Amino acid sequence: MKDFNIAVIPGDGIGKEVVSEAVRVLETAADLHGGLSFQFTEYPWNCDYYLEHGVMMPEDGLEQLQPHDAVFLGAVGDPNKVPDHISLWGLLINIRRSFEQVVNIRPAKHIKGVRSPLHDPKGFDFIVVRENSEGEYSESGGRIHQGDDEIAIQNAVFTKKGTRRAMDYAFKLAESRRHHVTSATKSNGIVHSMPFWDEVFKETAIDFPDIKTRKVHIDALSAFLVSQPETFDVIVASNLFGDILTDVGAAIMGSIGIAPSANINLNGKYPSMFEPVHGSAPDIVGKGIANPIGQIWTAKMMLDHFGENELGNHLLSSIENVLDSGIKTPDLGGKATTEEVTNAVINELKKL
Amino acid sequence: MKDFNIAVIPGDGIGKEVVSEAVRVLETAADLHGGLSFQFTEYPWNCDYYLEHGVMMPEDGLEQLQPHDAVFLGAVGDPNKVPDHISLWGLLINIRRSFEQVVNIRPAKHIKGVRSPLHDPKGFDFIVVRENSEGEYSESGGRIHQGDDEIAIQNAVFTKKGTRRAMDYAFKLAESRRHHVTSATKSNGIVHSMPFWDEVFKETAIDFPDIKTRKVHIDALSAFLVSQPETFDVIVASNLFGDILTDVGAAIMGSIGIAPSANINLNGKYPSMFEPVHGSAPDIVGKGIANPIGQIWTAKMMLDHFGENELGNHLLSSIENVLDSGIKTPDLGGKATTEEVTNAVINELKKL
Ligand SMILES: CC(C)[C@H](C(=O)O)[C@@H](O)C(=O)O
Ligand SMILES: CC(C)[C@H](C(=O)O)[C@@H](O)C(=O)O
Repeated sequence: MKDFNIAVIPGDGIGKEVVSEAVRVLETAADLHGGLSFQFTEYPWNCDYYLEHGVMMPEDGLEQLQPHDAVFLGAVGDPNKVPDHISLWGLLINIRRSFEQVVNIRPAKHIKGVRSPLHDPKGFDFIVVRENSEGEYSESGGRIHQGDDEIAIQNAVFTKKGTRRAMDYAFKLAESRRHHVTSATKSNGIVHSMPFWDEVFKETAIDFPDIKTRKVHIDALSAFLVSQPETFDVIVASNLFGDILTDVGAAIMGSIGIAPSANINLNGKYPSMFEPVHGSAPDIVGKGIANPIGQIWTAKMMLDHFGENELGNHLLSSIENVLDSGIKTPDLGGKATTEEVTNAVINELKKL
Repeated sequence: MKDFNIAVIPGDGIGKEVVSEAVRVLETAADLHGGLSFQFTEYPWNCDYYLEHGVMMPEDGLEQLQPHDAVFLGAVGDPNKVPDHISLWGLLINIRRSFEQVVNIRPAKHIKGVRSPLHDPKGFDFIVVRENSEGEYSESGGRIHQGDDEIAIQNAVFTKKGTRRAMDYAFKLAESRRHHVTSATKSNGIVHSMPFWDEVFKETAIDFPDIKTRKVHIDALSAFLVSQPETFDVIVASNLFGDILTDVGAAIMGSIGIAPSANINLNGKYPSMFEPVHGSAPDIVGKGIANPIGQIWTAKMMLDHFGENELGNHLLSSIENVLDSGIKTPDLGGKATTEEVTNAVINELKKL
């Protein structure tokens, strides 16, 4: 019996609505598997918690999470309650960094039954490997002068180690896929960090002679995700560029409500964290129409992470069958509720 | 008689093929207008010039350009001859900065007769005002240590003055359009420069009480250009974010080959520069199939800049009529040559 301890953080808004549904799916998956079980422990850390306690999580929050095999998170942030930079840096980014979740993995795939805004999505299927610990997201910087003379300086910091490990991850991933890695750069305009990024990419490529490579500036690359998404397999990108590319990836999939992601700890010292790409969507809270697919697909990534790839693939097939059958939430043009979609996925899973 | 002196820099690759065509259009426009004339002076500065002279332009290049009323540029760069950061910083970015072309204006518009990759472009019509002098494109930064310990640091520098003038420009532009400005930010992840950007946006908005505002993070905004481009009027963005958004804008238009841009000097001390969004496309050089529309639309922006808005609008209508009639280069699915498309635009212009 493989037993996994999962820390569950529903977070804010629809996070609370979709996480419980994905947990139902995971429980079904474990039952079907036989040799697998999950223990879920819920942590109520979110913007309401902040309003009550003045912090996004208790002082020993990270220690509480640490012993788990994974963190399963819904969505963090609700700008009507707490400014984003406080809620996000206090919880989401804090966990990513403290637990050395140094790469963020986000697949984007054309799913049958989901209408892409593109005429001809040509069955695109790529994964963005995003550097998740440094780069443009840095607390280094500050301001000088006041009033009309004020200046803000922001430092982006790229280390060889941080850059290299993201690239190694991308190349290894490509070995199990279509053997192609594209690097998102901007070395024609950003003249210190990006030429460094290019150098490390070149260096890494030497160690993976069977992988074809391509280097595309972020402006053109964002455009190519619209005009030729089928030409990409694995894309490796800095923290900011990965953030942008994965939202465009979610957009061409047809809804940000279905896109999953994984924050991976590579050194085994801390748990990894699984969270969908979408936010807390305060505008649709309480209506029962939040799309649970992003969270359920995120659960599939967690299964893969635990080495349960077969079960993970079954889950993805179940998702695809349900969407193809037309059982969809309103963001996808359907009429089903959060619960109905989840029930349909569970039924599919039982069939496989 | 209004007489304008234009410095023409065809640059590299297809730049040389489309600039001469757009000059033909401008000459026709002047003839039709009657009270308008252009003097064109060509400057052969490009990567070949670099290979011969070791510089992208002569030492007194900027002084040669300075007395002109505008610079009309094709495309710069050919990585097979000269590394991009040398060719671009030596010519394009050098001119942008030395001539204090502090905002870059790029319209994106659904054009009848051009197939957008989007199912339903809903007649989108927006303009990106890009801060063009500072921000993430900065020469400030460097490296420390070597080998496995190497670190690259890149400073982004945002001044109140630089940020405010781009925003003022955007708000004024919105007054002549649909009274709506969207700010591209990322203050939830980038915690020094972007909160500053947000503050200046808020401050600016107070001076334009009749303009509606919206603030969207760059990841979501890039996705919205795919899923709901029709909701934007004027978008104001930093140098990097503007670069990305305008390429996505060109992608949803259907081809980067039709997108125009203007680099505007606001203090009247130096000429502004007009250049299409596309690059030098070395792969199609010499085939006579380069799309001249981007360069011709860029000419329209130059006419507007000279106060010749009526003529500019005629030119845009001519472009739209030609594309709608099916006379298009291969990048748009047509069979026409560069010259045929230009001739068709000239014929349309004569009709109006
Ligand atoms: C070539 C490059 C430096 C340039 C930029 O990023 O400004 C280009 O992409 C553009 O948008 O004009
Ligand atoms: C909320 C924000 C800080 C976060 C990020 O930029 O990392 C989000 O956009 C994401 O992609 O997970």
